[in-house]
Amino acid sequence: MKFEPITYEQGKITLLDQTKLPEQVAYRECTTVEELWDAIKCLAVRGAPLLGVAAAYGICLGIDNKKCTTPKDLVSFVAETAQYIGTSRPTAVNLFWALERMKKVVTGAPDKTVAELEIMMHNEAQAIFKEDLSLSRAMGKAGNEIIADGDSVLTHCNAGGLATSGYGTALAVLFTAHENGKQIHVYADETRPLLQGSRLTAWELKEYGIPVTVICDNMAATLMRQGKIQKIITGADRIAANGDAANKIGTYSVAVLAKHHGIPFYIAAPYSTIDFSIASGDAIVIEERGRQEIAEGFGKKTVPDGVPVFNPAFDVTPAAFITGIITEEGILMPPYTESLQALR
Amino acid sequence: MKFEPITYEQGKITLLDQTKLPEQVAYRECTTVEELWDAIKCLAVRGAPLLGVAAAYGICLGIDNKKCTTPKDLVSFVAETAQYIGTSRPTAVNLFWALERMKKVVTGAPDKTVAELEIMMHNEAQAIFKEDLSLSRAMGKAGNEIIADGDSVLTHCNAGGLATSGYGTALAVLFTAHENGKQIHVYADETRPLLQGSRLTAWELKEYGIPVTVICDNMAATLMRQGKIQKIITGADRIAANGDAANKIGTYSVAVLAKHHGIPFYIAAPYSTIDFSIASGDAIVIEERGRQEIAEGFGKKTVPDGVPVFNPAFDVTPAAFITGIITEEGILMPPYTESLQALR
Repeated sequence: MKFEPITYEQGKITLLDQTKLPEQVAYRECTTVEELWDAIKCLAVRGAPLLGVAAAYGICLGIDNKKCTTPKDLVSFVAETAQYIGTSRPTAVNLFWALERMKKVVTGAPDKTVAELEIMMHNEAQAIFKEDLSLSRAMGKAGNEIIADGDSVLTHCNAGGLATSGYGTALAVLFTAHENGKQIHVYADETRPLLQGSRLTAWELKEYGIPVTVICDNMAATLMRQGKIQKIITGADRIAANGDAANKIGTYSVAVLAKHHGIPFYIAAPYSTIDFSIASGDAIVIEERGRQEIAEGFGKKTVPDGVPVFNPAFDVTPAAFITGIITEEGILMPPYTESLQALR
Repeated sequence: MKFEPITYEQGKITLLDQTKLPEQVAYRECTTVEELWDAIKCLAVRGAPLLGVAAAYGICLGIDNKKCTTPKDLVSFVAETAQYIGTSRPTAVNLFWALERMKKVVTGAPDKTVAELEIMMHNEAQAIFKEDLSLSRAMGKAGNEIIADGDSVLTHCNAGGLATSGYGTALAVLFTAHENGKQIHVYADETRPLLQGSRLTAWELKEYGIPVTVICDNMAATLMRQGKIQKIITGADRIAANGDAANKIGTYSVAVLAKHHGIPFYIAAPYSTIDFSIASGDAIVIEERGRQEIAEGFGKKTVPDGVPVFNPAFDVTPAAFITGIITEEGILMPPYTESLQALR
């Protein structure tokens, strides 16, 4: 990997501070659980899979500092620490999933010593990290098949290493194609309002030495019409049982434009993104975010006082617009109701 | 009108300073031609039709201050002043058109006195202003026919009073519908990179008391899918003989999305926008603008150093996507090759 969004050693978590990118490549060290909590809260570390890893490392950091003397103390301390870390980003599903997994290590081994349990906890956190990395590598390998030498690929938002253990979902496909010697060029939608595309995706691609050009979201259609985009790949936050996919606002727009221009549109996401409990994207509730992200997102007032904004964080791309879904198990093709079920 | 982007009285031009909106509603007084030149240069006054008016008033300001003694002196002075004003925005067509019109007043009347010529010049400048306003009113009246009570209308960029003598092109239609008692709601695309939609369009609509909601450009598709947009109206910078229309970047994207969702898409522009010398939009050269508009447009670095951007200022919407073209002579319908020619 060209950069490490998170590393852990006994008593210390080091984070690539995502609030500083792209102005500064700065690392933020956390030597206490409180410092990690602050880093999660202020988005210095973000991205669902990466938050899971950060939470697991946070538990390790806690026990490194605490020096519990009995297994019972350790079990209590891990439960308290997990509860505390969980208050940093209460809606982050992966964070709770990782914390639960860490808690099970200590509650599921009543006859182990404190020293043994601590080793098991460190191993579990490393396993969470490595499993995530392995998923990214597998998605990259599967998706590489669709990338041709010379392709220009459009992506939206950041589905990269900075949201995961370091290799990404949609960007994993591009990193793998590049590592396989394919000459590719990437267009990154800046992705208003929070600019994850221009700030983070462009930075990652540059680190990998992949040529990247940033555009405003409203310029993608022009490139498509000019024949300058051969493939489109984005990530997904949640995929319904029928293949409808929720992702960052603007993804649906890109998908409609892709269909009109006859350009293949792919989603890259691990199996864990599929929510079989919802039949279609209609059941996905879209979070609406604050006015200031649009009205003064750059520290300058850009909307008159008193004028409201509409600021949905995500949109839903119907399955009919998705050429294929790139997973760690391979590329799923329509009809997704069947191919997703088969994966299950 | 609810606001006046420009007013002139003997020895003084007062401009609504567009660089300050929406943070401040500030007026900028110009008592010398040099001050006007600075105001044009720094975009305190902008918009093709409005620049024509500003240039004409600039000539008046020059002769107010100069006090020429012979007609010959006056002719030379007007020519010099026009040449100087023309250096402020060398690509602005309307500016040169207005300056030529002002020069013709003095060169075409060799037997007039200085006093007579000065009155004729002032009258000509007022005529340029009033003609522009009259075009806007006529477009508003023509376009009002397509607006139904209760409509939500999407617009892109600023085709409003701030780009003209005070009443606009696309926005003239909305102002007229509102004045006719129709309840309408407007969604304004913020229009990256320069945010003319969120900064200027939203401000104008608020001044007129028309409910407006600002969205990021990538959110329009979601509103269309939700059935929340009944009509789309934008301006145009240049229309080819076949109806292909160049307008602010992002307009083509909106037009494709409109077609997919079955929403009528209209252009509002005066006859002078039609360029019969070009057969289709393919002949329109698109200006590419600087990197900093995307990479640091808000005074903050949002693209990593060394990463290029693609920043076309305009795109071309093919005639096939345009439901109708609203002009001062009425609404033109396809096939535009015929309806535009008939207008000629």
